[in-house]
Amino acid sequence: MARQLVNKRKILNDPVYGFISLQSDIIFDLIEHPYFQRLRRIKQLGLSCVVYPGANHTRFEHAIGALHLMRQAIDSLRMKQVEISDEEAEAVCIAILLHDIGHGPFSHALEQTLVQGITHETLSLLLMEQLNTEFHQQLSLAIRIFKNDYPKKFLHQLVASQLDMDRMDYLRRDSFFSGVVEGTIGSDRIIKMLNVCDNQLVVDRKGIYSVEKFLVARRLMYWQVYLHKTVIVAEYMLILILERAKLLVKKGETLFAPEPLKWMLQHQFGLDDLSITDKKSNLIENFTALDDSDILSSIKSWCKHPDRVLSYLSKAIVNRKLLKISVADRPVSKTQLVEIKKKAKDQLGLKTNEIKYFVFTGSITNHIYEADSGTIKILSKSNETIDLENASDIDFKRLSKAVRKHFICYPKELDLN
Amino acid sequence: MARQLVNKRKILNDPVYGFISLQSDIIFDLIEHPYFQRLRRIKQLGLSCVVYPGANHTRFEHAIGALHLMRQAIDSLRMKQVEISDEEAEAVCIAILLHDIGHGPFSHALEQTLVQGITHETLSLLLMEQLNTEFHQQLSLAIRIFKNDYPKKFLHQLVASQLDMDRMDYLRRDSFFSGVVEGTIGSDRIIKMLNVCDNQLVVDRKGIYSVEKFLVARRLMYWQVYLHKTVIVAEYMLILILERAKLLVKKGETLFAPEPLKWMLQHQFGLDDLSITDKKSNLIENFTALDDSDILSSIKSWCKHPDRVLSYLSKAIVNRKLLKISVADRPVSKTQLVEIKKKAKDQLGLKTNEIKYFVFTGSITNHIYEADSGTIKILSKSNETIDLENASDIDFKRLSKAVRKHFICYPKELDLN
Amino acid sequence: MARQLVNKRKILNDPVYGFISLQSDIIFDLIEHPYFQRLRRIKQLGLSCVVYPGANHTRFEHAIGALHLMRQAIDSLRMKQVEISDEEAEAVCIAILLHDIGHGPFSHALEQTLVQGITHETLSLLLMEQLNTEFHQQLSLAIRIFKNDYPKKFLHQLVASQLDMDRMDYLRRDSFFSGVVEGTIGSDRIIKMLNVCDNQLVVDRKGIYSVEKFLVARRLMYWQVYLHKTVIVAEYMLILILERAKLLVKKGETLFAPEPLKWMLQHQFGLDDLSITDKKSNLIENFTALDDSDILSSIKSWCKHPDRVLSYLSKAIVNRKLLKISVADRPVSKTQLVEIKKKAKDQLGLKTNEIKYFVFTGSITNHIYEADSGTIKILSKSNETIDLENASDIDFKRLSKAVRKHFICYPKELDLN
Amino acid sequence: MARQLVNKRKILNDPVYGFISLQSDIIFDLIEHPYFQRLRRIKQLGLSCVVYPGANHTRFEHAIGALHLMRQAIDSLRMKQVEISDEEAEAVCIAILLHDIGHGPFSHALEQTLVQGITHETLSLLLMEQLNTEFHQQLSLAIRIFKNDYPKKFLHQLVASQLDMDRMDYLRRDSFFSGVVEGTIGSDRIIKMLNVCDNQLVVDRKGIYSVEKFLVARRLMYWQVYLHKTVIVAEYMLILILERAKLLVKKGETLFAPEPLKWMLQHQFGLDDLSITDKKSNLIENFTALDDSDILSSIKSWCKHPDRVLSYLSKAIVNRKLLKISVADRPVSKTQLVEIKKKAKDQLGLKTNEIKYFVFTGSITNHIYEADSGTIKILSKSNETIDLENASDIDFKRLSKAVRKHFICYPKELDLN
Repeated sequence: MARQLVNKRKILNDPVYGFISLQSDIIFDLIEHPYFQRLRRIKQLGLSCVVYPGANHTRFEHAIGALHLMRQAIDSLRMKQVEISDEEAEAVCIAILLHDIGHGPFSHALEQTLVQGITHETLSLLLMEQLNTEFHQQLSLAIRIFKNDYPKKFLHQLVASQLDMDRMDYLRRDSFFSGVVEGTIGSDRIIKMLNVCDNQLVVDRKGIYSVEKFLVARRLMYWQVYLHKTVIVAEYMLILILERAKLLVKKGETLFAPEPLKWMLQHQFGLDDLSITDKKSNLIENFTALDDSDILSSIKSWCKHPDRVLSYLSKAIVNRKLLKISVADRPVSKTQLVEIKKKAKDQLGLKTNEIKYFVFTGSITNHIYEADSGTIKILSKSNETIDLENASDIDFKRLSKAVRKHFICYPKELDLN
Repeated sequence: MARQLVNKRKILNDPVYGFISLQSDIIFDLIEHPYFQRLRRIKQLGLSCVVYPGANHTRFEHAIGALHLMRQAIDSLRMKQVEISDEEAEAVCIAILLHDIGHGPFSHALEQTLVQGITHETLSLLLMEQLNTEFHQQLSLAIRIFKNDYPKKFLHQLVASQLDMDRMDYLRRDSFFSGVVEGTIGSDRIIKMLNVCDNQLVVDRKGIYSVEKFLVARRLMYWQVYLHKTVIVAEYMLILILERAKLLVKKGETLFAPEPLKWMLQHQFGLDDLSITDKKSNLIENFTALDDSDILSSIKSWCKHPDRVLSYLSKAIVNRKLLKISVADRPVSKTQLVEIKKKAKDQLGLKTNEIKYFVFTGSITNHIYEADSGTIKILSKSNETIDLENASDIDFKRLSKAVRKHFICYPKELDLN
Repeated sequence: MARQLVNKRKILNDPVYGFISLQSDIIFDLIEHPYFQRLRRIKQLGLSCVVYPGANHTRFEHAIGALHLMRQAIDSLRMKQVEISDEEAEAVCIAILLHDIGHGPFSHALEQTLVQGITHETLSLLLMEQLNTEFHQQLSLAIRIFKNDYPKKFLHQLVASQLDMDRMDYLRRDSFFSGVVEGTIGSDRIIKMLNVCDNQLVVDRKGIYSVEKFLVARRLMYWQVYLHKTVIVAEYMLILILERAKLLVKKGETLFAPEPLKWMLQHQFGLDDLSITDKKSNLIENFTALDDSDILSSIKSWCKHPDRVLSYLSKAIVNRKLLKISVADRPVSKTQLVEIKKKAKDQLGLKTNEIKYFVFTGSITNHIYEADSGTIKILSKSNETIDLENASDIDFKRLSKAVRKHFICYPKELDLN
Repeated sequence: MARQLVNKRKILNDPVYGFISLQSDIIFDLIEHPYFQRLRRIKQLGLSCVVYPGANHTRFEHAIGALHLMRQAIDSLRMKQVEISDEEAEAVCIAILLHDIGHGPFSHALEQTLVQGITHETLSLLLMEQLNTEFHQQLSLAIRIFKNDYPKKFLHQLVASQLDMDRMDYLRRDSFFSGVVEGTIGSDRIIKMLNVCDNQLVVDRKGIYSVEKFLVARRLMYWQVYLHKTVIVAEYMLILILERAKLLVKKGETLFAPEPLKWMLQHQFGLDDLSITDKKSNLIENFTALDDSDILSSIKSWCKHPDRVLSYLSKAIVNRKLLKISVADRPVSKTQLVEIKKKAKDQLGLKTNEIKYFVFTGSITNHIYEADSGTIKILSKSNETIDLENASDIDFKRLSKAVRKHFICYPKELDLN
């Protein structure tokens, strides 16, 4: 028996932080659960690897990394006399470990197609509740913290806020694996600078430059990695592939796909359906059976499908012959768009209802500082809290305005002259 | 036109080396080829990620990294007045870029099941010849070098020898992504120490300590990563899954699988078949359509297959509930093995011909220094070459003897008392 | 003979960049010169090591590092078809190698005491001209570039501007050795993004986020390292020590010091004296004989000097018992200052003219973006240049305003109540 | 009062490990002591910076780093149920912090000249006892551990043995700052693998490859850094400079030097003198007043000394115009040596008793594995301990034999033909 206890105190090798040791039984057991193991097969950055070949790290590693930082944060806060009981510490660790459990493969694309209208946060909560039942209510406090339903608000803020352990880990990890070294953030120092005032998470005054740099690094990661135009076009193409596949299934065409993916292509599913027990458990079963491999393997099969829209887009993704994407500060004019679509139709011999898969527009936005999702509070020497935008020389108010860029995508082989 | 030329001089972000720039058109075009793009979907270390969650890097990154080191080696040798023409430089770069092109998903497992008897080296050559046709014989010199069929032997040795760029990259890269920092090798210094004497690749005298450390680091990586017992058991289980699947297909049972995998499960294929044009092109077509996602997605489907051997092993891999593995210096005695098998049969209610999937033995070996695959030559101050084993204080002759360890695997739930 | 040539192509080990190879004879010979070797004994960050124990790197390493980046910049610009002749390349390399040759030990303190009114830039030029004579005018072009007296302005800007190789290296290096990892800048990427338009150094549009991050990292390094309050108080104390020593020497008191330091304590020296040949060569001789060891060793001796001001301050520096420093947004009020001085006088039994060595005030400023020293130009897609402050979402105009902070220093043992 | 306690829990920035926090008052107070602060001015690697420009790190940083690793080791051992009381933990931390307190500037050279016959270990103990008096016997347990006079032998072994925290830190740190990346050791993993059996420090079986790699990396660091031939010649020249200075002082010549150095040049001092209280305290006072700056500053002054031996060698060190050194497996033959000396005498016009300063021979040795200073014990699965040389496939017995190399030094300008 004793031996088994020891076994649960495992040490993991993490390229980013070195050794990470698991320090409680329930954490170990949650990691062993198929819901969590499945995150090993879901890439953190979806299709970003089309631009950054090293960015193959998974949601599994990220969740473990965030857990590691959470423990550092707890230690640091406790050193500053912030009271965190052992139960609260375990609960907030569980909350961060599971905060992304509801992600599916290529989440952004999926959320707009297969589980339309259901965010990964909703799904995370759904799965946490399911796990809570399986684990005999041991996750109740973690869920309260996750839902921001617990008096010590700072615990929730460690899980979800502008300076949460989620961001601390993903920025550093994504920077590490993409090789975009400038995106590196000083998570160590920021964590050492965290404090609590009136149950709110705040940053000690002298941490202000680290927070500024964190925000600017985050901004850089957005434009350089997450919103890289080649990543954007790949993700939109994946959305179109899944939409087309759904349409074909609806029309009764046969499509190769593993069972769970097939089920999701066949079923329309909305937020309302979650209140119907049967539908919910069907969704959970099929959703948690899915991972990157199902999508990739199916798309490869679809390269040979007789539907030329499906096969064109599938081949484009598989062989990395993506559509061309042009990004600009303003959207393409209507006339221009009509003209390009006409050329596409003529030159490629498309049907009218096929054009939208080959020529499409969209926009991307990025806030460096999300004033609405809770400001960052700085703790002054006199123990008062000030909003970052008032404490810093950098004009974060200006930066909190969304920056929006517009793009148009079309086949490279199109002759626009 | 000019613009297109510029586009082929791409810069890639590599987490290990930073920026890598592609400096020739044909290199760019080869990377764009579907055979090569496919390497993006094949993990370099197969199932090692069951132990090292960060080890998700792909054969794509490795091939590019080895190319990068090759260019460093060429620069360094040219600085030492070693003559390498521009054509030779390009050819040896192509050779290293494509040296692993013949790898399939989970290569070790595959080579023992689906393409039994055909090594990835054979397949690499096969695909290089295919590409040579497509690229109008531009790869001929590269192929000669790859086959060691070119007078300047050192060029081949840069591609395949104990100090080749393949190893330089994979040791450093695998160490980086697994987080086993001690495996890090000083590839920079070793490359700076390379020299050529009588057309053979040699190491300058003062590089001897770096080479020693390289060999010991390699040894460490073998035991710590490549031959980690948990990785071994996972790989063996994968072999058994594929064998079982083949058997079921042979018996006429239906098995979910994407077309190329299905084809490979249905066809027995040997080295001889490569001389028959039709069979060869069938193999190439199906083989190059395969990647990790097909295997993973299929195994997930097989978790629900009525054959309990297949489903047991599949679930074990998917949910990481692996068999127990015990490693020792000596093999388990026959009596002991018989006894364990009997217990497995009784306790798990197995049929006789099913036992071998649940209880099996094997051995793993590791040479630190492969004297037979060509010794490492040290260039003395007086310009004579000495074998490393005579130049070093470390007894590499002793180390060149294979170290063999023996293991037995069986279900964790088995009660051995 | 040939052998000697080879010897000048040396390879240096740099902890920041790895191997750095010297690629020309004159570069090697300049590094060998005593003026340059002397930089080995001058710390890059002077007294910053009182806060950051790892910050012991020298001006020698920095100059070599900046040379290394200069060569990367030249390569990158040439790839973009910017014309740089071999002579220009060598000259700009010499210019960056020698840009800091005029630094003395603890430069900031020295410039305010021993060589009052003569900046290190003036001294650098002085020494470069001296070297030019010794090297038979081989440095003439380098000097023109250094003085911004050469038509291709971008060459000067690579040596001295907001994005020069000096800053690229020192920020990265200071961040590395201080351990303030957040200060790391992506010098690789910025260098890759440099371009030339109308003979001016510009940054390609897509490098804008890297430049933003560079500026914010620089700002962080200023507040966190260069202007760290403990570093400030140590530097001011050093200034006071040297001032006091000068005063004592003037009064005829004996002071231990190595000859060159003694000479400098004895001679008042101003910018005008540089036009008098004898005085100039005296200054050069004594100045280039000085390094950190003379200052440190003398201050240690002065710990036992009968003058209690000198010995108090010397002991404080040597044993790191620094004065207390308080920093605030506003200066201490006159009344408050008078009061503190009175207390110091009474409690410590000081003479009136001694008080200023124990209680003093000052201010520190920091511009993140120095609009006056030449704006950073961004090259738009349409090949027009825009000032960074107009191209970026960050309000650099606001940031270009100096941030000024005020401090007061006084002995820790003072009872202010 | 409370505030002051908090102040002693300081956080230091270390480029190697990141943040290091000091966790006890006495540790803080010891670091504040002038004996310890003095280590800030003593380079860890003495003259190695003539070859590795980045190797300017100090004994201060090393001692703090070793303390940091000691705390990791204590944590790791306690997790394995090894009993270490809080008092023992603090004592072993003090012991490692002060283990090198007896080092003077350029220790190796000094020990052979100024404090001939007194090792730094003896001096460390001397200073620790002095501190013990000042700190009211709070260091008694630390001293017992340091002297291996405490029953739990493993505590001493953590401070001084083949796997002590001293080596763990210095190898990693020296590798970091010299830029010899291959010397990096996996201190994290080795520390995690430490265990205790029968009060002896042992290594868990699965740590064997890490230990092997540690020993080979250590060996590499010896030949590449510590015993680099250019470092050797510089150190020998420093010894000769100090010997010559002593001789001149004895002859009554005037020599510039700070007081403590002057005192040491004037006094012959041996191990026996340590038992005479007055002599001992004189030595302590002068020795602890010395640091690198005194030696360097004096040698610079000596460049102009009329004694041509002293000035020749001094200039050679200052301007890095070192003697030539040739290293070989065998010593130079007597006839050859006589001949070279004769040439030196004739060509350089030396007096007979001056020759030995210009032409000299010597030898360097290196053990990879010091069997005599206690073998490394491996803990087998069956909880028995085996010597590493019996547990490893690498022949450490062979490697434990000293490797000896011989060298001869002479002026570069000598014409040997």
